[in-house]
Amino acid sequence: MRYDLYYWPMVQGRGEFVRLALEDAGAAYRDVARGASGMARLERFMGQTVRAPFAPPYLKAGKLVIGQTANILLYLGPRLGLAPKNEADQLWVHQLNLTIADWVVEAHDVHHPIGSGLYYEEQKREAKRRAADFLANRLPKFLGYFEAVLAKNPTRSGWLSGRRASTADLALFQMVAGLRYAFPRAMARREKRAPRVVALHDRVAARRGIAAYLASPRRIPFNAYGIFRHYSELDQ
Amino acid sequence: MRYDLYYWPMVQGRGEFVRLALEDAGAAYRDVARGASGMARLERFMGQTVRAPFAPPYLKAGKLVIGQTANILLYLGPRLGLAPKNEADQLWVHQLNLTIADWVVEAHDVHHPIGSGLYYEEQKREAKRRAADFLANRLPKFLGYFEAVLAKNPTRSGWLSGRRASTADLALFQMVAGLRYAFPRAMARREKRAPRVVALHDRVAARRGIAAYLASPRRIPFNAYGIFRHYSELDQ
Repeated sequence: MRYDLYYWPMVQGRGEFVRLALEDAGAAYRDVARGASGMARLERFMGQTVRAPFAPPYLKAGKLVIGQTANILLYLGPRLGLAPKNEADQLWVHQLNLTIADWVVEAHDVHHPIGSGLYYEEQKREAKRRAADFLANRLPKFLGYFEAVLAKNPTRSGWLSGRRASTADLALFQMVAGLRYAFPRAMARREKRAPRVVALHDRVAARRGIAAYLASPRRIPFNAYGIFRHYSELDQ
Repeated sequence: MRYDLYYWPMVQGRGEFVRLALEDAGAAYRDVARGASGMARLERFMGQTVRAPFAPPYLKAGKLVIGQTANILLYLGPRLGLAPKNEADQLWVHQLNLTIADWVVEAHDVHHPIGSGLYYEEQKREAKRRAADFLANRLPKFLGYFEAVLAKNPTRSGWLSGRRASTADLALFQMVAGLRYAFPRAMARREKRAPRVVALHDRVAARRGIAAYLASPRRIPFNAYGIFRHYSELDQ
């Protein structure tokens, strides 16, 4: 199966969680909007599809069109060897991916607390307040949660569920990478209390498919347009 | 199977999406935190479970503990007769539930744009700006999206997917009910352009299990502590 991924071509964004899974597995895929006339294709597709998604990313797999990042990972996981075998474990991994999806919204809303259609500069004052709350309360809560999940995995594998890596492990890697880019000072302090999360990040980064991807031009650098943005005034 | 639902006892909140599915199907379930020592049981359970959820709601089904609202609905849907049969359609219904979950976050963040741990009164000024953006841009976008999904359903059933009601239809009912409570003025204007969504709301409300539930004391009234809150200064 060759997959077609549709996502904004200039940012990692939510599409990155899908890219990481495809790259880790060495799957054949096309990042459609990064090709010729990419944006036009992305938008035309959104308009024409009967079961149109609310927003990118979406994945075309044969006749199937799947939207919502965690839903795409739910579909891809078993097909890419990045999901457990039984239903109970698959629900657990999906639950972790959904918790990361919530975290992504909060990481984004730090710089866009008023409206995603407004510029950062139009909501700077509010962003400063939201950043303070995020870094003091939410960041340690999420990091602590995933640290505990890793500590409580009965297999002590270092992965979030069972003995093998799943899409949720790749997603947690991406959170750490993104948060380090956006909030280097706060993360340097906070990640000390989450050594298992940091170890997981390093282990994912060293996986063959991921290491090759990160070193390639396919990995879009973090920048000032994505979910994770570095504004030093917010990193206190 | 008897289900145990764990959720805050004073509000509809995210738990309501699960309650609606259980009630529609006439399933045997216990709303644990609303019973004797309910809050203590909810919190003890959170602490002890190996695969502890990040936050309520969560559902106990035999040995399984499932967190994240949309994940619970993914599990319950086929078991309660509220999901399509094949994988493609189930992914589509799940995608719609995840889109509603995004909408829920935005409806909540209207009154809590800075931090969920702060009081509304501490973020009133920011809430006013966020409400203006939500009502002008996001509310019409979400309503228009679901209106289009209903219009494009090839079966013309009036349901979101195929010929039968699913957990996503119940969830869309809850969004309309909640938004009408929180923003009566704005919704009166906006819902005129979403007649299919309104018709779906009415049809869900008239379903036997739902009508009985809504008339019962089990339906917690909307109030000033839930996701949907009415502050007249935000409803412009």
